[in-house]
Amino acid sequence: MKIFDVSMLIEENMTVYKDREEKKPSLKLEKKISKDGINESTISMNLHTGTHIDSPYHMQSDGKTIESLDLSNLITKCYVFDLTNVTSGINKSDLINLNIKEGSFVLLKTKNSFSEVFLMDFVYLTKSGAEYLAEKKIVGLGIDALGIERDQPKHDTHNILFDNEIIIIEGLRLKEIDEGEYFMIALPIKIKGADGAPARVVLIQEISIEDGIVLSK
Amino acid sequence: MKIFDVSMLIEENMTVYKDREEKKPSLKLEKKISKDGINESTISMNLHTGTHIDSPYHMQSDGKTIESLDLSNLITKCYVFDLTNVTSGINKSDLINLNIKEGSFVLLKTKNSFSEVFLMDFVYLTKSGAEYLAEKKIVGLGIDALGIERDQPKHDTHNILFDNEIIIIEGLRLKEIDEGEYFMIALPIKIKGADGAPARVVLIQEISIEDGIVLSK
Repeated sequence: MKIFDVSMLIEENMTVYKDREEKKPSLKLEKKISKDGINESTISMNLHTGTHIDSPYHMQSDGKTIESLDLSNLITKCYVFDLTNVTSGINKSDLINLNIKEGSFVLLKTKNSFSEVFLMDFVYLTKSGAEYLAEKKIVGLGIDALGIERDQPKHDTHNILFDNEIIIIEGLRLKEIDEGEYFMIALPIKIKGADGAPARVVLIQEISIEDGIVLSK
Repeated sequence: MKIFDVSMLIEENMTVYKDREEKKPSLKLEKKISKDGINESTISMNLHTGTHIDSPYHMQSDGKTIESLDLSNLITKCYVFDLTNVTSGINKSDLINLNIKEGSFVLLKTKNSFSEVFLMDFVYLTKSGAEYLAEKKIVGLGIDALGIERDQPKHDTHNILFDNEIIIIEGLRLKEIDEGEYFMIALPIKIKGADGAPARVVLIQEISIEDGIVLSK
């Protein structure tokens, strides 16, 4: 089994959306071995920190919250498409020649994955791109940007995806990932009523029976 | 594919270790749709909140931190053992008749899973139990208590397990889980240098090729 960890490392000086200071997490060692016999920390963070999943409630007052997402859509086959040639918005025209299958989970690898700093002109999904993916009836979409849209006052991209029950993963790190098919596991922490949650996301290749997978007949 | 979510729900009034108020998480809706066009929250929480993984650094100054755990030990076959008959500490004598295999990940289901409140006399693993599991060379251990030990000033149970590179998962919810073999996915969020991290943990049964698992030949 080959496991690729495509999650961002959460740390105080990490890259955050539009480099906004208030979006950086803070960690505090509340108990220390030297004094208390154990190390024990607390964290304060925006729920959209690092690699995370948005829930519809992020943009829609009556939308589903993060704990109610169906995990069978997050433990599933996925396809990584290489869009590193796109320089700004990903439009329908950038997607139309890809072999996107109904019911699939799609991950978009862009030039964002190659930057260690926040790109103010990050590659994002346009309204036409979102409409096309909704038409293709995908179940989920992941991108290597901290936002799947950019400068849309009405949040069209998010809303089109949410209206079509498409799960959105943001903040993936796909630099080392070749285009192709993987088994994806994307697990957000289970926070009640939340607009999103940090997640650990891995892509797996070459699973074998020896890895302990118990297959039904 | 049948997915059992064995993770606690993170919420402000959730059960925390010894009911200590300062260990309860707090959530704050920083932006609201009515005012800001989006819902966006922050969370403050102890890293040992709900279902979580301890890293050796929790008890050992030179111990590994959470981001460095090998994920192949957390995406693996596991065995759930029913110890609901144990009333206090789990000793070697409670474990010796179980079929515990070298290299396996062991989950202990106890009466803790049946309580919605924190039990001050929660079932835990004693020093003799930890020594026995180390002798059996397991790779990881999960329990349905928020602490794997109770009232040990030198943290013997934790230290024996960490000294033997045994991963510790705490805060599982195993009420609905029958004794037996499962495929486990336990993914902590990836926090740099941390003594532990909240995790989403699922147990899977009846995986089939149709679920998208790509097996190598």
